[in-house]
This record gives sequence, structure tokens and C-alpha cells, in this order.
Amino acid sequence: MDAKTSIEDLKGLVKDFVAAREWETFHRSKHLAMSIAIEAAELMEHFQWNDADEGQTLLANAEKKLEISDELADILIYCIAFANQADIDISTAIKSKLDRNEFRFPPVNNERK
Amino acid sequence: MDAKTSIEDLKGLVKDFVAAREWETFHRSKHLAMSIAIEAAELMEHFQWNDADEGQTLLANAEKKLEISDELADILIYCIAFANQADIDISTAIKSKLDRNEFRFPPVNNERK
Amino acid sequence: MDAKTSIEDLKGLVKDFVAAREWETFHRSKHLAMSIAIEAAELMEHFQWNDADEGQTLLANAEKKLEISDELADILIYCIAFANQADIDISTAIKSKLDRNEFRFPPVNNERK
Amino acid sequence: MDAKTSIEDLKGLVKDFVAAREWETFHRSKHLAMSIAIEAAELMEHFQWNDADEGQTLLANAEKKLEISDELADILIYCIAFANQADIDISTAIKSKLDRNEFRFPPVNNERK
Repeated sequence: MDAKTSIEDLKGLVKDFVAAREWETFHRSKHLAMSIAIEAAELMEHFQWNDADEGQTLLANAEKKLEISDELADILIYCIAFANQADIDISTAIKSKLDRNEFRFPPVNNERK
Repeated sequence: MDAKTSIEDLKGLVKDFVAAREWETFHRSKHLAMSIAIEAAELMEHFQWNDADEGQTLLANAEKKLEISDELADILIYCIAFANQADIDISTAIKSKLDRNEFRFPPVNNERK
Repeated sequence: MDAKTSIEDLKGLVKDFVAAREWETFHRSKHLAMSIAIEAAELMEHFQWNDADEGQTLLANAEKKLEISDELADILIYCIAFANQADIDISTAIKSKLDRNEFRFPPVNNERK
Repeated sequence: MDAKTSIEDLKGLVKDFVAAREWETFHRSKHLAMSIAIEAAELMEHFQWNDADEGQTLLANAEKKLEISDELADILIYCIAFANQADIDISTAIKSKLDRNEFRFPPVNNERK
């Protein structure tokens, strides 16, 4: 579905979800930044005691992959809520960051020339 | 730009950026989960000593807002890299999570009826 | 009990606990650093949606204070396990850091003179 | 020095440091919990792209070990500040947690009998 879903679509879904619960008063930037970090820790928990190779094996298990997708969704929902609340255009922010990183970390091909 | 950018577009941008640097070997789920948490902490730093109200005031400052957008972009880039690496459809994951939360946290209007 | 307990005492307690479970193989620095961050997020959860003032009020509730003490203990146990595993003298590390911060952040009295 | 330093000694050092800078107003539980998480992320950064084995190798490098000790100290200083501010006896909290974990995670020897 990622090919047919725009960032704006997801922003709308999150906005409506928050509005239907009248959670806007809780959605302050400080609280949302904490929430992103809290959910990021829950994603890490799946990989806490594993080596990187074992971590990859986890994702081959369909049930485990669903749990992990769920944790990623939690992080992203709070990121989108943060962007909604702070009026940040996500695509612009990501492209601008990647453009600057293009210079900070030159591609391998360029270095070889 | 969020209205015209699909999730797949962003996934492609991140995938190409990673491939051009031959970073795929570093992009294991465990390392990426840590990276998301590390960037989430950098976003929190902007709000570390502020009250929630002062945190909001920060975003009225254009320069500060750009720094904060940058930190959010860093988190999202690693989330997208995680989804690319683990073959997760972000839209499906987010919608599925919101659908289940619809029952866990009933909307205010329903409760009042 | 803090007046009568040395850091070495706590290090010994944690070391014995880990050894009795043969967890040394899991106690790699990378995994322990993740564990500290995961427990830190659980402490934050108690303050996620509160203003700083409300956060203080939580601690006046004896039951809540016990839960919060528990989360702090989890963080500290992993910090001590990390120090055990990496052979770090905690007192030296803390004093050395405070000494350097003494110059980075001059005391208020000195500034007034 | 850990054998000769009590928890109370470290609490006193941190308390004096904070008082000399009149930072008590900033030291609210919510802000300190965030600070612990922020410093925990800085410790993780040292192990971000490494396998667990490579992480161990880092500590064999004296200069790197000092940097890592510094990050651990930052986490611990905020934990101690949190305990000072919330009036938590660290030794009691740790011992109480280890005692309960004694039952949750039975030692290997007991299981074998």
C-alpha cells in the first residue's frame, strides 16, 4: 500500500484519530518527543540480547515480524503526530536532510573516480 | 510536498542513498533500532529542560524549528531504512495499529452517547 | 542505607546475581547499553503526559514513588552491570566528570564576584 | 575507589554540584528522567554499528574506554540527581529489586536440582 499512500494521507489518519479522542491538549512537542523515544525503546527490546545476525532471523518469523511492525508503527504514529502538531512538512524535512548528507557522506562511486 | 509524496517515494530515496554508500551491511535491524532511539534522544534534547509550554514556544522560532525538523527527519530516515530492510509496508502497519487502537481507546463522541 | 553502602557492595550484589544465572555471556557492552536505554524509557513513561509540576506530585504518592524507585533501580542495576563487565571504577568516573564540569559550568558564586 | 566510596558520598557530590549552580529549579523528575534517557543514548552511540564482539574490543582501547566511562558517568550523575530530588534511597531500591528478581529468575543451580 505504500505506493498508493501519501504522507498527507497518513497525517490525516493520525490527525482524525487524535481529534476524535480530544487528545490535542496532550500532544505538546515535549510530550510527543518523549513518546517517540519510549516507543523506540520498545522496538529495541526485541533485539536487546541478540547479535545482529540473530536479530535478522527474528524477522523471518511471521508472528514476530508483526510484533516488530507494530512497534515501528507506534514510533511513526508519534512522529506524524509531532509533525502535525509542529506543522512540519515531512517530505521536505527528509529530502533536505538527505541532500545535505549527500555532501557529508560522498557516495562510494564518486570516491573511486 | 506531503500531499504529493508517497511512502514508496521516500522509501526509494532512502534505499538509493544507502545503496550509493554500500551501507546495506550496516543496516541490520538491531543497529537500526538503536539508531532510531539515538536520534529520538537528539530530538528530546531540544525539550530537555523546558516546560511543555516553553517547548511550544521553541517552534515559533524559525531557526529552531528547522533544527527540530532536522532531528525528526533523522528519526524518520532510520524508520524508513528499518522498513526497507525488514520489508515492512509502513501504511499497512500504521493503519492496522490505528484500527486496533480504535477499540482500545474509544472516541469521545461514542462515549457520550 | 546509602550512607553505609559502598559502590563496591552494590557491584558485588549485581555480580553475584548475574553469575548465579550464568548471564555473563549476555552481558556484552552493546547489549547492556541498550538495556540501560530501555529501562530509562520505562522511567520516562511515568512522566510521559505530565507537566513538570504534575510529575513532582506523582512522587508524593507512596505507591507511585515505589514504582518509580523500581524503574530507577533497573537503570542503575544495568549501569553497575556495565561497569562490572567493562571494569570501570564508578566513583572515579563520576568524580572525574564532575571535576571537568566544574570548569565548563562555573558555580553561580564565582560568576557574581 | 569504589570500595571506599558510599552511595551517600556520591549523592553529596552531586547535590553540592547542583546547589552551587542553583540548578535545583531545573531538576524536576520529568526533566531528569529525560536527561537519563538522553545520556543513555550517547552511551549507545559508541556501539551503534558494531557487533557485540567488536563492542567488547572497543573497551580494550584505553582512550575509547575513557570516553565510554564518561558517558556512563553522565547517566549515573543524572540517576543520582533524580534520587536526590525524589528522596530515593538507592541501595534500598536496588536490593529490593534484586530480591524480587531472585524469584522471577531462579538461579541456574536451583533449576538443576
